[in-house]
Amino acid sequence: MQTIRSIEASQHVGQPVRLTGWLHNLRRLGGITFIVLRDGWGTIQAVTESEADLAPLQNAALESIIALEGRVVASPQAPGGVELHQPRLSLLVPTSEAPPVPLHKPTITAGLPTQLDHAVVVNRHPQRRAVYRLAAGTMAGFRRTLNERHFTEVQTPKLVASATESGANVFELGYFGKPAYLAQSPQFYKQIMVGIFQRVFEVGPVFRAEPHSTIRHINEYVSLDVEFGFIENHFTVMGLVREVMAGILGELATHYAAELALLEAEMPAVPEEIPHIHFAEAQELILRLHGVDVRGEPDLSPQDERWLGAWAQAEHGSDFLFVTGYPMGKRPFYTHPDPNNPAYSNSFDLLFRGTELITGGQRLHRYEDYLAALAAAKLPTEPFETYLEAFRHGMPPHGGFAIGLERLLMQLLQLPNVRLATLFPRDMQRLTP
Amino acid sequence: MQTIRSIEASQHVGQPVRLTGWLHNLRRLGGITFIVLRDGWGTIQAVTESEADLAPLQNAALESIIALEGRVVASPQAPGGVELHQPRLSLLVPTSEAPPVPLHKPTITAGLPTQLDHAVVVNRHPQRRAVYRLAAGTMAGFRRTLNERHFTEVQTPKLVASATESGANVFELGYFGKPAYLAQSPQFYKQIMVGIFQRVFEVGPVFRAEPHSTIRHINEYVSLDVEFGFIENHFTVMGLVREVMAGILGELATHYAAELALLEAEMPAVPEEIPHIHFAEAQELILRLHGVDVRGEPDLSPQDERWLGAWAQAEHGSDFLFVTGYPMGKRPFYTHPDPNNPAYSNSFDLLFRGTELITGGQRLHRYEDYLAALAAAKLPTEPFETYLEAFRHGMPPHGGFAIGLERLLMQLLQLPNVRLATLFPRDMQRLTP
Repeated sequence: MQTIRSIEASQHVGQPVRLTGWLHNLRRLGGITFIVLRDGWGTIQAVTESEADLAPLQNAALESIIALEGRVVASPQAPGGVELHQPRLSLLVPTSEAPPVPLHKPTITAGLPTQLDHAVVVNRHPQRRAVYRLAAGTMAGFRRTLNERHFTEVQTPKLVASATESGANVFELGYFGKPAYLAQSPQFYKQIMVGIFQRVFEVGPVFRAEPHSTIRHINEYVSLDVEFGFIENHFTVMGLVREVMAGILGELATHYAAELALLEAEMPAVPEEIPHIHFAEAQELILRLHGVDVRGEPDLSPQDERWLGAWAQAEHGSDFLFVTGYPMGKRPFYTHPDPNNPAYSNSFDLLFRGTELITGGQRLHRYEDYLAALAAAKLPTEPFETYLEAFRHGMPPHGGFAIGLERLLMQLLQLPNVRLATLFPRDMQRLTP
Repeated sequence: MQTIRSIEASQHVGQPVRLTGWLHNLRRLGGITFIVLRDGWGTIQAVTESEADLAPLQNAALESIIALEGRVVASPQAPGGVELHQPRLSLLVPTSEAPPVPLHKPTITAGLPTQLDHAVVVNRHPQRRAVYRLAAGTMAGFRRTLNERHFTEVQTPKLVASATESGANVFELGYFGKPAYLAQSPQFYKQIMVGIFQRVFEVGPVFRAEPHSTIRHINEYVSLDVEFGFIENHFTVMGLVREVMAGILGELATHYAAELALLEAEMPAVPEEIPHIHFAEAQELILRLHGVDVRGEPDLSPQDERWLGAWAQAEHGSDFLFVTGYPMGKRPFYTHPDPNNPAYSNSFDLLFRGTELITGGQRLHRYEDYLAALAAAKLPTEPFETYLEAFRHGMPPHGGFAIGLERLLMQLLQLPNVRLATLFPRDMQRLTP
């Protein structure tokens, strides 16, 4: 007999099938017993009125490993619309202890520390698992969109000889008698590789030693990075951001509908053109609409971003808004200035429902500009020697962006904490599980 | 005018096109000048007899960024079968210095240290770039094969609280006042996640602090990891290995023919069934064929593997050979023993042309078996607490394998050093570029 996946059962109505998985639930209702099996993709229930059918499950705790044979019967009131009759159960691997958190309840009510301490088992809960399956779908949609546009996927070193973007907030380790650092971002490498492949992307871990304990910070996360050459300016990059977001959300809508439904996700539409507003104009708008004068501030506050998000929704009916032209002062040294107004940059943030989701922009590409930018930032050139070598030997106008995978999921699913978008989060207190 | 990629030119014969890229070569032959443009995917030559056409390139070193317009003309003797006539050149970003290594010669003759020191530019060489494009294709083929089989892609933490497989050879760092370690492999996490997703894979960096300086060792590499549940034994895993190898090689043959041709790769065929031989039987075979008695040795030597590879070729016409049932003594504590002969394990190596390429096998899945195995290995249970929690709450028979991306490419392309299969290698001496 064929062993099928739980979510394939509805294609086998009237047939005998076999399933294997975890004993997800066992529920008695009058003389009827419902046995729920969970496999890697979903759950299915079997129904019996016979105590003899249940004999193999004596002394088996929930989460025991079982096999289940039976006939598939359409049953509108069963979850998934089908159930198994005349079940034949066998116990493959018994367990004796109840899970640390009930996995068969629709939602998890345990506190966050308990959930994280026991993530090894709690992540089996269908709702938690759905979040991580959407992570896989996000990576798939990201890659598909970029592969279709002839980008090359790369893997850059995570062990580096010197701290890159900011000297602080970097993890240091001993490397055969010398210090080494964990990469905070693939920024320099992805730019270097524009010289090799012209268009590149990477999906990989980044490490931030930031001593922040907030709902939005973790110290290791997955970064979806893009960089490409022969752009006009940051608007070329923003055009690609739009296509990548549409590609990710399209992938989720098409292939992960069950997960989105389980999590009651409100999926945004990506407009044909995402509205954009210049940083200075955004500050004027805030003054006009809310009477708060933030002109001259070098960055937007969370409140500013919420106001702008609300404005984009009201004015353009859009969950997304690009803010362009952030002041150069707060952007890293490799940022390309606005040629017409060099106090502002050719950079952008993408706000999603009033919170920053993606940062990107055009980078410097001339060797001389790098020397000048490093001098202006009072940075030595020596730690940047190999980075600079790429620019000495010809680099086109280029730019890119990065998406934090966990933050994207947190915002998309409106999770209360980024740790709930992370299989095994790392924060200041937590290195396990 | 449309800006096309170099490899698309043959679809535009007779039409005017525009290309952008790097000044790859400039060659004068009598009164004729060949201008070769390289973009992210290939090269194309333009031909002119007019000095005026070349004026924009005065003082432009090779690798300068250029744009090139012209009419596509079929030309059987031109590389790629087409060339551009009546070129109009413009210099977008000039450079003044020759590249550290000539990039327009068919092969690189510089020594390995020079190549690695200047990898930032040397990796632009079409041959070097082809290697890394095959890396991207390998990842794509790996993922496609597993996605088709309903595996879920995961990203596991690289910062861990305790050394996992072997206590030594692990990089240590300071983590907010506590020690942390870089993951040597996602082994424990991928097993834990069989409890969540049933079938998982990961593509990500692993870190080995092994103080070995050989042509086959680097200290950071990309591991392609697979783990899945409800297997019969290690033969189920070997069946998937075969499909994954066929999927990878099929992806390369289909989508990377130009790169394979450039590197003169001899692509192996993957037999419908890869031949297999038990470890003990392999030792008997070596005695019989070569008169060398290695029976009782706990592992195969490189010479043993070469002999077995030659035998698989002669006997089965296969570049691949599974050796099964390695002695338990040399395998990690989580290895499942052979139920019929517990001195041997349900594990395997895949030899490719006489060198080990993939290691895998069945793992223990019962909680009690883990307690016994840790006790037998004289290991404490405390560092494995969260790992063990997964087994306390139900884990099916499972197994998996791992492929080192760089070693696969090294063996497939017969590169003399694994560093030449790595964009920016990390070894005992090298942390840059």
